[in-house]
Amino acid sequence: MLNKFMGKTKRVVVPAMEEILEKEFPALDKGFIRLVDYMGGDASIVQAARVSYGVGTKKVSEDRGLIRYLMRHRHTTPFEMAEIKFHIKVPMDTWRQWIRHRTANVNEYSTRYSVAIDDAQQTSENEWRMQSSSNKQGSEEFFPPKLGREFTIQETEVQKYARKVYEKRIAAGMAREQARKDLPLSTYTEAYWKIDLHNLLHFSGLRMDSHAQKEISDYAKIIGNEIIAKWVPLTWEAFLDYRMNAKIFSGPEIKFLKERGIFTNLNLEDLDLYQGSGFVNEKGVLTREGKEFQEKLKLLQGS
Amino acid sequence: MLNKFMGKTKRVVVPAMEEILEKEFPALDKGFIRLVDYMGGDASIVQAARVSYGVGTKKVSEDRGLIRYLMRHRHTTPFEMAEIKFHIKVPMDTWRQWIRHRTANVNEYSTRYSVAIDDAQQTSENEWRMQSSSNKQGSEEFFPPKLGREFTIQETEVQKYARKVYEKRIAAGMAREQARKDLPLSTYTEAYWKIDLHNLLHFSGLRMDSHAQKEISDYAKIIGNEIIAKWVPLTWEAFLDYRMNAKIFSGPEIKFLKERGIFTNLNLEDLDLYQGSGFVNEKGVLTREGKEFQEKLKLLQGS
Amino acid sequence: MLNKFMGKTKRVVVPAMEEILEKEFPALDKGFIRLVDYMGGDASIVQAARVSYGVGTKKVSEDRGLIRYLMRHRHTTPFEMAEIKFHIKVPMDTWRQWIRHRTANVNEYSTRYSVAIDDAQQTSENEWRMQSSSNKQGSEEFFPPKLGREFTIQETEVQKYARKVYEKRIAAGMAREQARKDLPLSTYTEAYWKIDLHNLLHFSGLRMDSHAQKEISDYAKIIGNEIIAKWVPLTWEAFLDYRMNAKIFSGPEIKFLKERGIFTNLNLEDLDLYQGSGFVNEKGVLTREGKEFQEKLKLLQGS
Amino acid sequence: MLNKFMGKTKRVVVPAMEEILEKEFPALDKGFIRLVDYMGGDASIVQAARVSYGVGTKKVSEDRGLIRYLMRHRHTTPFEMAEIKFHIKVPMDTWRQWIRHRTANVNEYSTRYSVAIDDAQQTSENEWRMQSSSNKQGSEEFFPPKLGREFTIQETEVQKYARKVYEKRIAAGMAREQARKDLPLSTYTEAYWKIDLHNLLHFSGLRMDSHAQKEISDYAKIIGNEIIAKWVPLTWEAFLDYRMNAKIFSGPEIKFLKERGIFTNLNLEDLDLYQGSGFVNEKGVLTREGKEFQEKLKLLQGS
Repeated sequence: MLNKFMGKTKRVVVPAMEEILEKEFPALDKGFIRLVDYMGGDASIVQAARVSYGVGTKKVSEDRGLIRYLMRHRHTTPFEMAEIKFHIKVPMDTWRQWIRHRTANVNEYSTRYSVAIDDAQQTSENEWRMQSSSNKQGSEEFFPPKLGREFTIQETEVQKYARKVYEKRIAAGMAREQARKDLPLSTYTEAYWKIDLHNLLHFSGLRMDSHAQKEISDYAKIIGNEIIAKWVPLTWEAFLDYRMNAKIFSGPEIKFLKERGIFTNLNLEDLDLYQGSGFVNEKGVLTREGKEFQEKLKLLQGS
Repeated sequence: MLNKFMGKTKRVVVPAMEEILEKEFPALDKGFIRLVDYMGGDASIVQAARVSYGVGTKKVSEDRGLIRYLMRHRHTTPFEMAEIKFHIKVPMDTWRQWIRHRTANVNEYSTRYSVAIDDAQQTSENEWRMQSSSNKQGSEEFFPPKLGREFTIQETEVQKYARKVYEKRIAAGMAREQARKDLPLSTYTEAYWKIDLHNLLHFSGLRMDSHAQKEISDYAKIIGNEIIAKWVPLTWEAFLDYRMNAKIFSGPEIKFLKERGIFTNLNLEDLDLYQGSGFVNEKGVLTREGKEFQEKLKLLQGS
Repeated sequence: MLNKFMGKTKRVVVPAMEEILEKEFPALDKGFIRLVDYMGGDASIVQAARVSYGVGTKKVSEDRGLIRYLMRHRHTTPFEMAEIKFHIKVPMDTWRQWIRHRTANVNEYSTRYSVAIDDAQQTSENEWRMQSSSNKQGSEEFFPPKLGREFTIQETEVQKYARKVYEKRIAAGMAREQARKDLPLSTYTEAYWKIDLHNLLHFSGLRMDSHAQKEISDYAKIIGNEIIAKWVPLTWEAFLDYRMNAKIFSGPEIKFLKERGIFTNLNLEDLDLYQGSGFVNEKGVLTREGKEFQEKLKLLQGS
Repeated sequence: MLNKFMGKTKRVVVPAMEEILEKEFPALDKGFIRLVDYMGGDASIVQAARVSYGVGTKKVSEDRGLIRYLMRHRHTTPFEMAEIKFHIKVPMDTWRQWIRHRTANVNEYSTRYSVAIDDAQQTSENEWRMQSSSNKQGSEEFFPPKLGREFTIQETEVQKYARKVYEKRIAAGMAREQARKDLPLSTYTEAYWKIDLHNLLHFSGLRMDSHAQKEISDYAKIIGNEIIAKWVPLTWEAFLDYRMNAKIFSGPEIKFLKERGIFTNLNLEDLDLYQGSGFVNEKGVLTREGKEFQEKLKLLQGS
């Protein structure tokens, strides 16, 4: 009976994840994401967070409220208590962006040991994108298919040519580590990628964003919508509410709204204002989340 | 003439920092923060960010605008390009929180090699704080001095007693690593602490927050207001605007404001609305920051 | 049939670990280590390492040989593919050392939210250690029990006194975050601790070492001998052979051995030399490990 | 007079580094390494290490001995107290390996914002390497120039072709982020790279190793021999002795040497044995390093 403070903790199993273990989610033309393993779930986040409350307070908040509280206040360490491992197949160009997420464990297919994967990501005629004029790093609308067809034909040629050169080198006995040097960035690679949930959400936040490049975004959306949403549904909902769909108002912006008196005539104490909004519980009082919202509005009101 | 793309980069020297090198800023009763060294400054953040723009775009944005843009969009890597080193003296109890910031380099005074520092943090009679009733992890108002005096007298005794026991053990030849085991958490320790600016701002954001414990907050405020503000004034201003003084509105909150029609009657296209707000430049048009704000308001308006 | 290169990968289950899930291993007088969950095992290390070999080479090495090869050549990333989570109870003084291992996920019991755990680590009369004269940071032999008894009595007093002061403060309504400041370092804390195998072995290597402090070493030995050894038996054997029981000979030392001619008269090509040593396989030829050893000896021989 | 324990610490300036600030060291055919800035040096490593010794022990070891001791016993944190920043130009294929070193700060030239650098790494006719038969991931001897000439001609063609396709796409208004997808891995990129000395030595150890690919090894050797050696000469010497030129003998190997009696007839106590070896100081007694060596030999002797 030593551990009276934190209580017995059990391994967390998520049935919805057991069902998609080893399942392959296709991405782009020849890529995929496969779920290899996971550790923990919403329940282990709650478990870890409650370490901070001690024995007497186990039932103070229900799980959803606690997870939303953690997300809202950027208490990030409990989200590190869940871990996930993928096997992915991805073009090297996309991998170049992916690998910038440093807090993860990686084992990539080695083209020093083995012959490079004989797949390159091919863009079909209706997928070629124009340079965005407003966003220096982005894309805008698609090229008309006629022009797209030309790009695709040309791409097929350059990819075939580069592969032929590669294979000639290999056939001549060239070291694989050198032979690969002129392969196109569109060449596919594979890797194991293992990461904790906090860092995975950071990845999702950046790579599902509208500024992210479409290719990596495709992967991020599959990971988010098909896998994380099943793995940790409460965390995923909170993440969408507080990160993806949230807006930050800066100090100067808040000053502006306050000075322009935009909120002046709202009676923030009148609970009728909040009816039907999700900020009031079944007893008709503001939830913890509701009170924090009220505080933000008061601040804008200058009270 | 090889490096035509990124241009020649120079070491950045910040005169205001040269003046406070080795300066000791006192903290709590016997602690301090001393600036040992630094690398980079606002200019090296800009330098790093411009890598992404290439040669032709060097003057597109002036430095302040660029730094604010980076901060607003959480482009964090350029802030990692500046580094700083402190020598600090801090109670072990505060150090327990400090050390949780993992992305930093640390060398702490060893009480295995050397006799423990003969200083404990003493709380004066008017500094004892009551448990907050609203915030489980916080403090509220101060105890009346009369009661505070008793606490202080008692603390002096318990600290003296624990030190006496420690010194007896040392005098008897006990291993220092074991002798220290009953020293109070209020005992001071010293350390070198080296960290990059991105992670330091994360520290500032958490530890200058109103929910942080007063003791570590005292240190964080000195580091922020006395050192970072001098080191990288543009970054510090952006940090205050977009982190410390910003408010995040969640998805549900934005939906609420939109549905309640609070912004309905604002004509957001009327530039007069923004006059005198800092969101309009000298030519009377919205700045990039202003446009992004307008977008947020439109979103609330449902347009 | 997309993933022809890396092959289908399955979740790894280790029966010996399933048996000790949630088991509590006692440590020190009132501490413990409990296994909460794990991901992967020897098989997933092999799986990750084979990514580098591609499809044709799956059977080139058997698992044990491959794991030993990885360990010998410090190919560390495959060991990051296994993850483990513990719940521990440990004195704060020991935790101060533990937490210095930065690449881990941690949730510690909060003494801001909750009353401090009412347990302090007590040293019994025959466990008090003298300062080592040869090793500035170490301990030597034990104090005689008579003297030890006095230390223990005194410790009990100082711990009781400090706790009484703490409880008076709490009873008076003092903020928990401040009340705790004079608790002794011997006070127990609890935490979840999650880490990958590579970093856990690093922890084991440092904390099972003879220079580590006895208290943390007690924990490290339980983790190593009772848990890691069951989890990844092949990796653990390799770790003992190549880290714990290995000796490094520096450049100058190798030069010395070579110049002094100590190995001169050995005929390193004579396979009889290696019989019965484990460096020769059943066919009587040197294993890969054996050849690498022969190379080191040749180097010493100056050939 | 607060900081009596750790003493006043001064910023460390290394004259040999001031001389090469902003200097460009060429690498491969069109790449380079340029030193942008640095913080600390041998002196700050010593400073950080001495934190552990306290005030009375400042002169116990001279700097060289202390640094060698730290390196020998893998006390790595003091080496984290020195930091360095480079601007590099490197082929993307080499960068793919480089970026795997995660504990570093990086800002890479963006080919989403800007047109890709118009340089590809070209291999000259006498630099094409054959696949090693003994080492699956390595190279062996060079191809004869006649064959090499063909490879070079073909490479020039494939690079030119891929560049032409890229420029056509750009001219047609294709988004840069998509246009780049078929550029060869040999295309150059540029980046700022900032890292602490401990992690930089880890990079050096792996990338200067004979198993590293020649291209990244070329960079690592320049960084090591031309820059680190000037920056921290004592650390660099210790690194060469204890890492690059050291040999590790595993548990089974030590057992073998011991059982085969190879060291039996050495009288390890006879100091004459060590004369002229650097393990004896001017007074004729073994240094700390010498004693540790003697211990290793005793271990082999079975005494």
